Amino acid sequence: TAARLDGIPPTIFSTMSALAVRTGAVNLGQGFPDEDGPPEVIAAAVRALQSGANQYAPGIGTPALRQAVARHQQRHYGLQLDPDSQVVVTTGCTEGIASALLGLVDPGDEVVVLEPYYDSYVAMIQMAGGVRRPVTLRAPDFRLDLDELRAAVTSRTRFVLLNSPHNPTGTVLTRAELEAVAELAVDRDLVVITDEVYEHLTFGTDHVPMATLPGMAERTLTLSSAGKSYSFTGWKVGWATGPASLVGAVLAAKQWLTFTSGAPLQPAVAAALDEHPDFPTTLAAELREKRDLLCDGLEKIGLRGRPPEGTYFATSDITDLGWPDAMAFCLALPERAGVVGIPTQVFYDDPDAGRQLVRWAFCKRREVIEEAVSRLGAAD
Amino acid sequence: TAARLDGIPPTIFSTMSALAVRTGAVNLGQGFPDEDGPPEVIAAAVRALQSGANQYAPGIGTPALRQAVARHQQRHYGLQLDPDSQVVVTTGCTEGIASALLGLVDPGDEVVVLEPYYDSYVAMIQMAGGVRRPVTLRAPDFRLDLDELRAAVTSRTRFVLLNSPHNPTGTVLTRAELEAVAELAVDRDLVVITDEVYEHLTFGTDHVPMATLPGMAERTLTLSSAGKSYSFTGWKVGWATGPASLVGAVLAAKQWLTFTSGAPLQPAVAAALDEHPDFPTTLAAELREKRDLLCDGLEKIGLRGRPPEGTYFATSDITDLGWPDAMAFCLALPERAGVVGIPTQVFYDDPDAGRQLVRWAFCKRREVIEEAVSRLGAAD
Ligand SMILES: CSCCC(=O)C(=O)O
Ligand SMILES: CSCCC(=O)C(=O)O
Repeated sequence: TAARLDGIPPTIFSTMSALAVRTGAVNLGQGFPDEDGPPEVIAAAVRALQSGANQYAPGIGTPALRQAVARHQQRHYGLQLDPDSQVVVTTGCTEGIASALLGLVDPGDEVVVLEPYYDSYVAMIQMAGGVRRPVTLRAPDFRLDLDELRAAVTSRTRFVLLNSPHNPTGTVLTRAELEAVAELAVDRDLVVITDEVYEHLTFGTDHVPMATLPGMAERTLTLSSAGKSYSFTGWKVGWATGPASLVGAVLAAKQWLTFTSGAPLQPAVAAALDEHPDFPTTLAAELREKRDLLCDGLEKIGLRGRPPEGTYFATSDITDLGWPDAMAFCLALPERAGVVGIPTQVFYDDPDAGRQLVRWAFCKRREVIEEAVSRLGAAD
Repeated sequence: TAARLDGIPPTIFSTMSALAVRTGAVNLGQGFPDEDGPPEVIAAAVRALQSGANQYAPGIGTPALRQAVARHQQRHYGLQLDPDSQVVVTTGCTEGIASALLGLVDPGDEVVVLEPYYDSYVAMIQMAGGVRRPVTLRAPDFRLDLDELRAAVTSRTRFVLLNSPHNPTGTVLTRAELEAVAELAVDRDLVVITDEVYEHLTFGTDHVPMATLPGMAERTLTLSSAGKSYSFTGWKVGWATGPASLVGAVLAAKQWLTFTSGAPLQPAVAAALDEHPDFPTTLAAELREKRDLLCDGLEKIGLRGRPPEGTYFATSDITDLGWPDAMAFCLALPERAGVVGIPTQVFYDDPDAGRQLVRWAFCKRREVIEEAVSRLGAAD
C-alpha cells in the first residue's frame, strides 16, 4: 500500500456495519435510513432504465440533473448558478470531497477542519499531501470556538473544510458562527469547501449555506447529495456547486476517479429535486420525532447528550458507564446488548475530547429505535 | 487547481462527445454501444430498485456480486478467488485504475505502460506522483516490442500497467507477449496491473488473462467491468481481483474516493454474470461483423488500417489525406463530414508515433456505421 495511506485505518463505517451483519445487532452505526425515499422517484429510475439511460452520462453530469441542482439552489437559497459551468455531478458527496481535495490541495497546504471530522476528510487531506488543522467542537454543546478557529489559521492555510449540519455532532452552525468563518476566509483569502449533505435535515434550526453569505459565493465550493435528502444513500448521486474555477477543479480530478456514474439514477434524482421539493422537509419532521424518541429513551437509561439540531445522529456521553473509552464500549456492545453505535473518538486527533462519546443513528423506523433503546437499557 | 493536475487536459472523450452533441455528428468517438444489454438484466435492476436495494452497499461490494465475479473468474479462466478478500467492486474500471494507482504507487515509482494509453492511466500515474515509462505499440501492427519493453524497466520500476485487449489499438496480446511480460515481472519483482475490460470482446483471438500465467496470480491485479461485457457502460459497475494484499490496497484507496456506488445496479450485474454468461460472446460475434462493416467501408474510401483483434475500436492512418495531424482532422471532421472520431495522437508521449492515427468506435448499430462511412466517403 502506498505511503499516502499510511496510518489510515479502514473506515469505521465498514468495520461497524460488518460487525452489525455478523452479530445480527440493531445497527444504529452507519447513517442510512431503513425506509426508501419517494416511490415516484424509484419509478423515475425504472423509467430511465427501461428507456435507455444505460450508457455513459456526461462526465459533468446529465444536463437535466445539473439544471435541477441549479434550480434547487435558486429555490431554496436564492443562489444563481450556471448549470453548465457551476454544477458538477459526483458519485455521492464522498467523491465530491475526494475530487475537491485532490483537485485543489497541494502538498503542504493547510486545511482547517472541524473536529470531530467525517473520516474521509482526514484520509483525503492526507492523500492530497495537505496538513489538517483541526478546530474542536467540544462536548457537550459542540459549538464552534471562534478563537480556536482564528488560531488555527496560519500563513500556509488555504482552505476551510466545513460541515454543517455537522456529522457526527448534529450541530447546525449559526449564522453568527458562519459569518465568523466567512470573515476569516475573506480576510485571509481562503477557499471554503462546505459539505452540506444534511442541508434539509434540521430540527427547528435553519441551515444557512456558506455560499449565501456576503462575499462567499465566489470562494465557496458547496457539496451535497441526494442520498440524505431523498433517502437513497445507495444511489450515490451528489453534486458540487460554486464558481466555475472551483467546480472546474473538481471536474478535473473527478474525471479520472470515476469519469461518470449512475446514468439511470441521475434522471431520477433530477425528478426528485424538481417534483418532490418538499420531501426533505417532511423527512426532517419525521426525523425530529425519531430524534426525540431516541434521545428521550437514552436519557431514561442514563445515556446523556444534547439533542442534535440536525443530521441523522445523536451523541451520548458514556463517562458514567465506566468503560475505558468509546471504542472498547462500541466493540463490546453488539455481543453485550445487540446494538451497534459509532465510537466518535475515531473522528478526533485529540483523544481526550472524544474518548467517551458514542454516535447513534436515528434515521430508522420507530420500532427499531425502541428495540435498540430497550436492548441498551437491559444491558446496562 | 492543484499541481498534481498540471498539464492534464480534460479527457478527450468529454471534449469529443460534447462536440458530437453540439454538431449533431455521428459519434464514433467515445466507446459506448447504442443498444443496451440484456433486458433481463434491466429487469433485475428494476427488481432491486423496487425491493429496497437503495441504501449503501458495503464498500467492498454486495456479497452476491463479489461471489458472481469470483465464479466468473473460475468459469472462464480457472482462477480461484476468495470473494471476501480477493474481489472488490469499483465504480467502473476507471475507479479501479484510480484506486490501484493511488493505493499502490509512491512518488517516484516507475510504471511501465503501453503507449498509446487510455488517458486516465497517464493522469492517475501523475496524480499518484509516479513516473510513466511508455512502451510504444507501433502502427500499423501495434505489436509489443519485447526489447523496448525490457529497456523500459529500470531499478525504480515497480509496476507494469497492462491493457489487453488494448484500447485504442485493438491489439490482443498473444500468450508469448504476455509470457515475456510475466517473465520480466517475476524477474524484476514487479506488480502487474492489468485492465481487461474488453476481455470478452475479441474476434477470433483468445484473450489470455495475465493472472493465469505461471507465477502471476500472486502479483497481478486484474481490473474489469460490466460496462463493456454487458453493454451497460453507464452503470459503472466494475471490479478488481487478485491477491488479498493488492485488492486490499485498492479498497484502502477506493473507500475514500466514492466509498461505494450503484447499490441497485450491483445485484443486476451479479445476475448478468451468473445468468447470462454467454451474452458477451454473442456480443463479440456481433461486434466482429460491425468491425468488418466499418473496416471494409473505411478501406474502400482510402482509410487504411489493420482490423483490430478485439475491443470496440478500429484505427485509420490518415497520412494520405494531407492533414497536419489527427487532432486537426478530428476537430474539423464534425463540421466537414458530420462524424466524430478520436485523435489517437493524444494517447502518445511520442507525437510522431501517433500523429496520423484516428480511432473509430464500431460498437454501434449497422445503419450508424454505414451512415458514418458514407459521410466520410462523401467528404473525402
Ligand atoms: C459513507 S458511510 C457513512 C454514512 C455516513 O454519512 C455516516 O454514517 O456518517
Ligand atoms: C470513460 S470514457 C471512454 C470510454 C472508453 O473506454 C473509450 O472510448 O475509450
